[in-house]
Amino acid sequence: MLAREIAVEFPTVTLDTGALEAARLMADQRLPGLVVVDDDGQPYSVLPGSQVLNFAIPAYVQEDPSLARVYGEAAADRLGARLDAHTVRELMPEKPHELPVVQPDDTVMEIAAIMAGMHTPLVAVVEDGEILGVVTLTTLLARVLPPA
Amino acid sequence: MLAREIAVEFPTVTLDTGALEAARLMADQRLPGLVVVDDDGQPYSVLPGSQVLNFAIPAYVQEDPSLARVYGEAAADRLGARLDAHTVRELMPEKPHELPVVQPDDTVMEIAAIMAGMHTPLVAVVEDGEILGVVTLTTLLARVLPPA
Repeated sequence: MLAREIAVEFPTVTLDTGALEAARLMADQRLPGLVVVDDDGQPYSVLPGSQVLNFAIPAYVQEDPSLARVYGEAAADRLGARLDAHTVRELMPEKPHELPVVQPDDTVMEIAAIMAGMHTPLVAVVEDGEILGVVTLTTLLARVLPPA
Repeated sequence: MLAREIAVEFPTVTLDTGALEAARLMADQRLPGLVVVDDDGQPYSVLPGSQVLNFAIPAYVQEDPSLARVYGEAAADRLGARLDAHTVRELMPEKPHELPVVQPDDTVMEIAAIMAGMHTPLVAVVEDGEILGVVTLTTLLARVLPPA
């Protein structure tokens, strides 16, 4: 079983995609993160969901979550407001996460070894600089585990 | 909006659950990880999917994924075989990940602050030592983001 056989389509965003739009994409499609392509359309990084919150929540509140309580229930709206008018570029961590890349002909064992070694649930399948799709950890497990 | 209002059911496993059974649960329900409860049924830790692969793939193959190729395509079956006859207890990393816990009355902002600070996509909602459910990052985003 090869990477090209188990790769699935996965939405990508660019560095110029709106932060709110990216957050909505994660929410609507229940994605743990997004694949980010650079200005040349080349696979660049993974944006984890927690990074979106990291951007939306002030640092002093992260350090002392009990402070969040003073915002009250309604203040959740501010999360969206904080994301509006920003881009994915601004959301990226200072040291962007490396996007693990595999070749279409890589075997399931090779993909599993990369996921295990890099502690990542997502690898991009790339051919000639173009993303053919991604393999997620759960897809991989579903394909290799023996039936119950 | 409070934790109790957005918590969803989430399968838990014990330290004695079979490793293969746990892996199948992740695969079947497309879960990024599992909540692990200890022998007293108390919330204990999170088992990330990558840890399952970490256990199933020999360390020397993780360090040099090109070695995985020599197993050939069919050898993916060995992943399942390596998990059989082991338990979640054996799968756990040496330093188990802390399970982030919130109270039923915690606000969405408090939950978001914890997810952002701990870089976790999953918190357990716990009342009197019992897990009422979990809040995932995508559930939280879906509830707080303004409609497009």
